[in-house]
Amino acid sequence: MSQIYMSGKKLFIPGPTEVRAEILDEMSKPMIGHRTEEFGQLFGRIKPKLQQLFYTQNDCLISTSSGSGFMEASIRNCVSKKVLNCVCGAFGKKWHSIALACGKEAEKIDVEWGSAIKPERIDEKLSSNEYDAVCITHCETSTGLLNPLKEISEVMKKYPDVLFLVDAVSSLGGTKIEVDKLGIDICLTSGQKAVALPSGIALASVSQKAYDKAKTIKGRGYYFDLLELKKSYDKNQTPYTPSISHLYALDRQTDYILNEEGLENRFNRHRQMAMMTRTWAKKRGMEMFPEAGYESDTVSCIINTKNIDLKAVKQKIGNKGYLFDTGYRKLNEKLNEDGKQTTFRIAHMGDIQEEDLANYLNELQNYI
Amino acid sequence: MSQIYMSGKKLFIPGPTEVRAEILDEMSKPMIGHRTEEFGQLFGRIKPKLQQLFYTQNDCLISTSSGSGFMEASIRNCVSKKVLNCVCGAFGKKWHSIALACGKEAEKIDVEWGSAIKPERIDEKLSSNEYDAVCITHCETSTGLLNPLKEISEVMKKYPDVLFLVDAVSSLGGTKIEVDKLGIDICLTSGQKAVALPSGIALASVSQKAYDKAKTIKGRGYYFDLLELKKSYDKNQTPYTPSISHLYALDRQTDYILNEEGLENRFNRHRQMAMMTRTWAKKRGMEMFPEAGYESDTVSCIINTKNIDLKAVKQKIGNKGYLFDTGYRKLNEKLNEDGKQTTFRIAHMGDIQEEDLANYLNELQNYI
Repeated sequence: MSQIYMSGKKLFIPGPTEVRAEILDEMSKPMIGHRTEEFGQLFGRIKPKLQQLFYTQNDCLISTSSGSGFMEASIRNCVSKKVLNCVCGAFGKKWHSIALACGKEAEKIDVEWGSAIKPERIDEKLSSNEYDAVCITHCETSTGLLNPLKEISEVMKKYPDVLFLVDAVSSLGGTKIEVDKLGIDICLTSGQKAVALPSGIALASVSQKAYDKAKTIKGRGYYFDLLELKKSYDKNQTPYTPSISHLYALDRQTDYILNEEGLENRFNRHRQMAMMTRTWAKKRGMEMFPEAGYESDTVSCIINTKNIDLKAVKQKIGNKGYLFDTGYRKLNEKLNEDGKQTTFRIAHMGDIQEEDLANYLNELQNYI
Repeated sequence: MSQIYMSGKKLFIPGPTEVRAEILDEMSKPMIGHRTEEFGQLFGRIKPKLQQLFYTQNDCLISTSSGSGFMEASIRNCVSKKVLNCVCGAFGKKWHSIALACGKEAEKIDVEWGSAIKPERIDEKLSSNEYDAVCITHCETSTGLLNPLKEISEVMKKYPDVLFLVDAVSSLGGTKIEVDKLGIDICLTSGQKAVALPSGIALASVSQKAYDKAKTIKGRGYYFDLLELKKSYDKNQTPYTPSISHLYALDRQTDYILNEEGLENRFNRHRQMAMMTRTWAKKRGMEMFPEAGYESDTVSCIINTKNIDLKAVKQKIGNKGYLFDTGYRKLNEKLNEDGKQTTFRIAHMGDIQEEDLANYLNELQNYI
């Protein structure tokens, strides 16, 4: 077993994920002044590494918040007329709730949980010319589904005035997302998922088109005002005091991802782990929850076809030192006629290795 | 010299302040699931300790953000008609900027930097019945001035429908603020000042009156929606993934403040350090920048009456391993006829001890 596990319970939940010891060590480095040259150097070192991670020439902003913060930033800064939210699970629903909470006009494409958002549905909606932005979840953590970004990006290119806003919280860092090739205006993620940082930091690439839109919008607020963040970013600063500890960790972890593991190796490892999980589930006579062909490489959602008491599994494997995850919210609450939960999830993202996952699956099959 | 210093440069700036080794150690503890019982226990342990620190029975909410985040929350959730911002320095000005950035109607009381906000000025404004909230900075970090909260609270009691919103970022934890006695509706602070945590976490007490007001306001947004935070708070949770590392640190540091040092001892230590600094400045023939009688116990702003080249001081004492701070923004940029900066600041807040400050002042007087 690899030496990654730090906590009492090994995390196979879709975030927070396990954080390597050297990254945890970075978190305990002493404070520095956030208006010093030393801070500017730290911030300046991180910027180009994030651009590599996001495959972009756009700015990659950093927020001391969860990924939800950058979802709100996207909505506040990029929506004036109306936003189109693509909902195929809990996090697509979250886009819509945030839009409404910000007082924006919003409409949604609503498909059954577990189904993918098809590009033609977006095309159909956008042809009415009512929208200034489309919000979509790349990996829907609640259902283990990966929406077809490439195909959707082809549709988006037909509507150059409509901003393309992507929640890549549980995919970026585990799945390749070529932001510039795909023409994504805002691509946001959280540290505590496939990037394998401690929770508390969010990252987002922002296009010039998104900044230009923001300039036309009043009431953007302060903390999530992209133009304030940009002004400071250009000076290697933040508008307000950031979590300096997380910046130390991010600086080290981006070195690790880019130069020690390498991006392609990282994506391959995630794909391997996803395939291991799917094969394991199939062998055990179970099926994947998401629509075939749209399974995520970072988190698997599996149907409880064997009518297993998942609460008991959680307890038993918990005693073995693993944190097991049943379905998310609506899926977790939905019980079958025998009163059993209908899905469970296995996260295989971040810095866990194939052998860690193999050990987990071996242990799990004592109960499933 | 005490064992507090962790970094290359000892921080005598008003935040981030020095963080003790055992608190930095907490930051490097492994992640846990934020929807687990273990997390609920951690969160539940912190709540009553924050209520002690804030001298309140109100909820004490926690945000993964800087203190500015809770300033925005205060404005978004508590202002429908118009807000009155009290400006006597850079952070009072920030209240006003945030209100405008959130699209709120706002007016300000503007006094010269270094002067205090007098209660009668607030009384006069509120008598017009136009306002639903007053925003004030307790300790104005930019000028080392402490506004007279007690006297102001007497005026506020005449206007029970007007919310009393206090930025206590650089005072709380170093100066006693009895939230309930003063009738403060929102009292907010940042971790990285007198509470001596790593930057990245903010705390705020919130009254029922503030929640009730929030219920009447649309477009509160998501990340800083006090009602969402409250809903989760009551279940020992957060609406979105928080910085778990900071919660570990907060849990330990509140134990230290309340049970090891003790609140009264902590406030006395801050008062002693402030008096040491004022005496030192006076002996060196210099005067305090803030209006007499309103000097802060956590940060001193001193007038450069000796016409010293402060940039050179910063460099020289920097070589000795200390981070020196000149005035803030406007005060920093303001030069006298000889081209010298006109003020400098000495922060004496958080966990540094009298002997640390004495050593710093001893070193400083080689150059000042």
